[in-house]
Amino acid sequence: MIERDRPSALRLFFVWRGSVVAHILPQIVGFAIYAAAIVALARVLGLDLSAVGVAPFALIGITLSIYLSFRNGAAYDRWWEARKLWGLLVAESRSLPRATEAVLADPEVRRRFLFDFLSFCHLLRGRLRDVDVQADVAPFGPPAGSSREAIRRMGHEIAAARRSGALDPMGHRILEERLAALTAIEAGCERIAGTPLPFAYTLLLHRTTYLVCLLLPLGLVGTAGWATPLFTALIAYAFFGLDRLSEELAGPFGTEANDLALDSLCRTCEISVLEALGDPVPPPLAPRGYYLS
Amino acid sequence: MIERDRPSALRLFFVWRGSVVAHILPQIVGFAIYAAAIVALARVLGLDLSAVGVAPFALIGITLSIYLSFRNGAAYDRWWEARKLWGLLVAESRSLPRATEAVLADPEVRRRFLFDFLSFCHLLRGRLRDVDVQADVAPFGPPAGSSREAIRRMGHEIAAARRSGALDPMGHRILEERLAALTAIEAGCERIAGTPLPFAYTLLLHRTTYLVCLLLPLGLVGTAGWATPLFTALIAYAFFGLDRLSEELAGPFGTEANDLALDSLCRTCEISVLEALGDPVPPPLAPRGYYLS
Amino acid sequence: MIERDRPSALRLFFVWRGSVVAHILPQIVGFAIYAAAIVALARVLGLDLSAVGVAPFALIGITLSIYLSFRNGAAYDRWWEARKLWGLLVAESRSLPRATEAVLADPEVRRRFLFDFLSFCHLLRGRLRDVDVQADVAPFGPPAGSSREAIRRMGHEIAAARRSGALDPMGHRILEERLAALTAIEAGCERIAGTPLPFAYTLLLHRTTYLVCLLLPLGLVGTAGWATPLFTALIAYAFFGLDRLSEELAGPFGTEANDLALDSLCRTCEISVLEALGDPVPPPLAPRGYYLS
Amino acid sequence: MIERDRPSALRLFFVWRGSVVAHILPQIVGFAIYAAAIVALARVLGLDLSAVGVAPFALIGITLSIYLSFRNGAAYDRWWEARKLWGLLVAESRSLPRATEAVLADPEVRRRFLFDFLSFCHLLRGRLRDVDVQADVAPFGPPAGSSREAIRRMGHEIAAARRSGALDPMGHRILEERLAALTAIEAGCERIAGTPLPFAYTLLLHRTTYLVCLLLPLGLVGTAGWATPLFTALIAYAFFGLDRLSEELAGPFGTEANDLALDSLCRTCEISVLEALGDPVPPPLAPRGYYLS
Amino acid sequence: MIERDRPSALRLFFVWRGSVVAHILPQIVGFAIYAAAIVALARVLGLDLSAVGVAPFALIGITLSIYLSFRNGAAYDRWWEARKLWGLLVAESRSLPRATEAVLADPEVRRRFLFDFLSFCHLLRGRLRDVDVQADVAPFGPPAGSSREAIRRMGHEIAAARRSGALDPMGHRILEERLAALTAIEAGCERIAGTPLPFAYTLLLHRTTYLVCLLLPLGLVGTAGWATPLFTALIAYAFFGLDRLSEELAGPFGTEANDLALDSLCRTCEISVLEALGDPVPPPLAPRGYYLS
Repeated sequence: MIERDRPSALRLFFVWRGSVVAHILPQIVGFAIYAAAIVALARVLGLDLSAVGVAPFALIGITLSIYLSFRNGAAYDRWWEARKLWGLLVAESRSLPRATEAVLADPEVRRRFLFDFLSFCHLLRGRLRDVDVQADVAPFGPPAGSSREAIRRMGHEIAAARRSGALDPMGHRILEERLAALTAIEAGCERIAGTPLPFAYTLLLHRTTYLVCLLLPLGLVGTAGWATPLFTALIAYAFFGLDRLSEELAGPFGTEANDLALDSLCRTCEISVLEALGDPVPPPLAPRGYYLS
Repeated sequence: MIERDRPSALRLFFVWRGSVVAHILPQIVGFAIYAAAIVALARVLGLDLSAVGVAPFALIGITLSIYLSFRNGAAYDRWWEARKLWGLLVAESRSLPRATEAVLADPEVRRRFLFDFLSFCHLLRGRLRDVDVQADVAPFGPPAGSSREAIRRMGHEIAAARRSGALDPMGHRILEERLAALTAIEAGCERIAGTPLPFAYTLLLHRTTYLVCLLLPLGLVGTAGWATPLFTALIAYAFFGLDRLSEELAGPFGTEANDLALDSLCRTCEISVLEALGDPVPPPLAPRGYYLS
Repeated sequence: MIERDRPSALRLFFVWRGSVVAHILPQIVGFAIYAAAIVALARVLGLDLSAVGVAPFALIGITLSIYLSFRNGAAYDRWWEARKLWGLLVAESRSLPRATEAVLADPEVRRRFLFDFLSFCHLLRGRLRDVDVQADVAPFGPPAGSSREAIRRMGHEIAAARRSGALDPMGHRILEERLAALTAIEAGCERIAGTPLPFAYTLLLHRTTYLVCLLLPLGLVGTAGWATPLFTALIAYAFFGLDRLSEELAGPFGTEANDLALDSLCRTCEISVLEALGDPVPPPLAPRGYYLS
Repeated sequence: MIERDRPSALRLFFVWRGSVVAHILPQIVGFAIYAAAIVALARVLGLDLSAVGVAPFALIGITLSIYLSFRNGAAYDRWWEARKLWGLLVAESRSLPRATEAVLADPEVRRRFLFDFLSFCHLLRGRLRDVDVQADVAPFGPPAGSSREAIRRMGHEIAAARRSGALDPMGHRILEERLAALTAIEAGCERIAGTPLPFAYTLLLHRTTYLVCLLLPLGLVGTAGWATPLFTALIAYAFFGLDRLSEELAGPFGTEANDLALDSLCRTCEISVLEALGDPVPPPLAPRGYYLS
Repeated sequence: MIERDRPSALRLFFVWRGSVVAHILPQIVGFAIYAAAIVALARVLGLDLSAVGVAPFALIGITLSIYLSFRNGAAYDRWWEARKLWGLLVAESRSLPRATEAVLADPEVRRRFLFDFLSFCHLLRGRLRDVDVQADVAPFGPPAGSSREAIRRMGHEIAAARRSGALDPMGHRILEERLAALTAIEAGCERIAGTPLPFAYTLLLHRTTYLVCLLLPLGLVGTAGWATPLFTALIAYAFFGLDRLSEELAGPFGTEANDLALDSLCRTCEISVLEALGDPVPPPLAPRGYYLS
């Protein structure tokens, strides 16, 4: 995640980090060159393409705008829902210590339970990002193999406490509700990570965008002349830029510039739990070069 | 569901699996030929159609874009809601083993209860997809006739446990809440499967799209000349492509390329439950040719 | 509700059931004749209206599209929310038998309670559709005067059971929660049925649509000539068609072609409850001529 | 709230009640006169303004449509959310009598509790509408000063009953949940009433609309001639009409034609509670001249 | 937050407070001067730029409108969600006194608990606004270091009461639910404050807007002549105005004109709690110069 104040108008044009330009430069430059070639060809051959005009592009533009607008909205919704799910996780990192304090008499059981929760956070992040988190999980006891196992272990602990009578029925219900919330968060994250936007959208959008950018210089050359490459590049920037950003946001758990700061959120959870346990607390993560991992 | 990384720009044009082009090829080719015939006719007869122009299409285009955009959004919402409901089912496949561990003392009752849940998942999928799932249900005890019956059986089991005192009131409440959630998931899926988007939208959209594509060449031929078939085909592709995709997504439980991977989700539920019971666990389903059933 | 597979492209043009064309034919034909009269008049009098052009219509078109798009979205949301509420009712028809089985010891009390629920469903439908449902309610015991009374009777029954000790506090809570859900469904349906979309939208939309269709031939005649009536009719079809459909969906409880199939949903509730009671079960309703009432 | 069937097409043009035309007539007429003056001036001075054209208005039109569409959507959402909150209140007017019947043994305490609820409804309406409701509250016992106090009194009553043992813990929980729901409804209504849409939207929208309507005749006069005042008036009607309606809906608790029928909703609550208590029941409010207060 | 009735049409043009004009004046004036320079240059050099036309801007305008519309919607959603969270906080300020009255026997414990809640409100505001609130927190007992600590203290108090038996299990559950709600509110506010809209949107939007405003005069000069600076300024106002407002709303916790009135909301919470405790009550905050802090 990029975290920075808005730079001045001029500097905005030279910001690279967090920008999608790097990814779509081939398209922008490519279509500019292609448009220039069309203009040159038309001049050399003395073709009069002014009749084509931009009128047909208005109708295609409408469809393209539906695609882009829909896909952008859907991608952002996924990104924001993912952030909400992790926000719920942060809330749990404060509710669990509080709830357990009242209903789990044995401090050792409580500590184990909360450490399993922290393992859960890291293991979930590990799975979503496809990275190894054994080093992060190590301080919190014998490692669980997966976030699913971590939460199951928390279930075993409260089931044992309930059966031994260390946990009364109401206390059990309170903790069980928290675990159900954790399970829902996990399943929600899995849903977003495991179900991409329908692939056919990508196809429809790409094919239409490429065809429009290929045909556009033919429509512009008659009126815009040598401004054609400039306009084509600008339109390619606008179309492919939004497309690329949508793709980045649609998979919000990665480590790209606009993805969610899962490392930092896991740290926030650690701080909440360790503070509540009275343990030494690590500092929150700080952005490096405006980027918060 | 199609699961693949985004291919390179060039290869995107030759992807067939998951594309809607196969379904709308008749329309694209048909309208291209029709447009070519119009151009030829206009040339032969020396008709001057330049006066028609594309101006009237702007107003119709606005309405058409409302239809397409609305229908696409509504279809995607159905698809995503269906996915959310199945995501809740996956969450239940983890909450039920945990909750029963604490409150159902008898492991045999617990196992029967959880197996009935797995039958429920398969039977729900069977009904939504209209396929036979007896083979999938067989390992989980005497077959229930329907997902409704499976859940009723789970109800009988906890009612019996409650009355015999094997389940205390709080335990009953916790499990009853889970069953209510399952019932809500089932009713939600039935709602999506049984209530198509209002039929009148299909009519309005189709009639308008066909009329526009029929009239469009008349508007284009005056200015675009022999580019008319190309533009007509492109617009037909954009309109019918989105229309076709919307239709596929509006019925998300089928087995088409962009439908939900219900087989794989059922397997995920099995894995969660069997893992918790300590039984041998089948591997997750893998996509075949990028397609996950 | 219309339930049918999508007909072939050609047949789509001749579908009448579920189509809104029947309702807006006067507008389509009327404006076509009016446009033809304008063209004839312009030709006879030798008027040159080409200066008017369609440019001013672009700006009005924007506003009109906001109205149409907003109203269509709001109407569909009402329709879909109504369907969701009835989906919740279907879920209750499965949760109530299950919950009562565990906590209501007396089968007679349980049967009376569930029959009151079925009366509630029919009475709610009766009120929403403004039809007489006494025949449907009769099999389920002494008739209640209104859905409100039916639910109140269910309340009396569990209050009596709670006071007599036949229902323990937790059982009471579980059933009370279900009744609160029924009350919320009833109030939600009343809200949709009793609060139409603000009347001013209808006025704004109609006046603008009529004015646009009245002025449009003046703008088109200069360029489109005798194609003017055709375009005017097409635009009238697109505008009034969406408008009419929105109106139908905004009041989703009626018996028009695109309204909800409340009869069929009530039957589904009956089946769920009677199945659970072990009573003979009626068959689900089937569509007649693609129409499910 | 206006409650009437849709009038015929012709009569729709002469409906005044519920229409926003009365409020925006100055703008419509003013801009028509202004446009006529521009045309006259251009004719007299022989100015050729055809070069200005309507092209620049297309870009501004896009922004204006974003403002209008967004503001309309946000205003309607506020209106509908407000209606939902009052729908929840109606549901409470049925749940509270039912819940209290089972758990509050003393009929006098129950009656006082329910009467306080009715005071709450009226006091909430009084505050939202800024009207005096002492006459409406009088029948329901010693008047509370505010809706906040009414709900606090209900809290005192159940706290006293809980402490005296007249209310068992589960009964307390059930009623406390209802009171929390009432508190949430109250806070939700306060939120909508106390937080207008950001003022800057009003400024942006108004300034842009006025500037567009001022410049538009300059763009139209070259082509549309004496039709300019007509088009200007139509566009002013479309823009200011939607603007005015949005403003009315954004503050849904007033007594304007399109505001919510709070009087009628309060009466519905009274009917539900008095029916449940077996008291004489007042008739529901009927619309006067299509207007339901 | 700006709180004022809508001024008359004329006065609307001279409102400064709450307007975004002050922030975007450099852009408006700058682009007007730039456009004037272009016109002058074209006149002096006798350049004919009429061929460029505004046609290419239509396609870019579509993309720009997607960006602006999306970003505005997303920003407003953040603002409104933030307001909803604080509305929930206000509801808690009424539910907590009521709930504690019934279940916390010791008035001293109750008072401490409620005062900690008020500290929580102020500390949350302090963190979100990055201001010092020690003076506001002082009256409510020994200061907590952070909102997180305040809520933890409330947790300690009810945990102690539960263990000592002063709080029964059901009372504990009721209060624990309230604390979980507070934790969720806190995490929700943190989420909005700590996760800006993806930075890439800002870049895409700015770059496109600047490029469009730079190229626009070239497209307009051919037809609009000396009206070009006027139109360019108007379009710059419309684009940058919405952009600036979106940015203000996207960070709703600041102290700018359109931000939320957190001071006033904290005061509302104080009033609710102190009223319930029977303590002297401060007056609600009043807007100063239409601005409510």
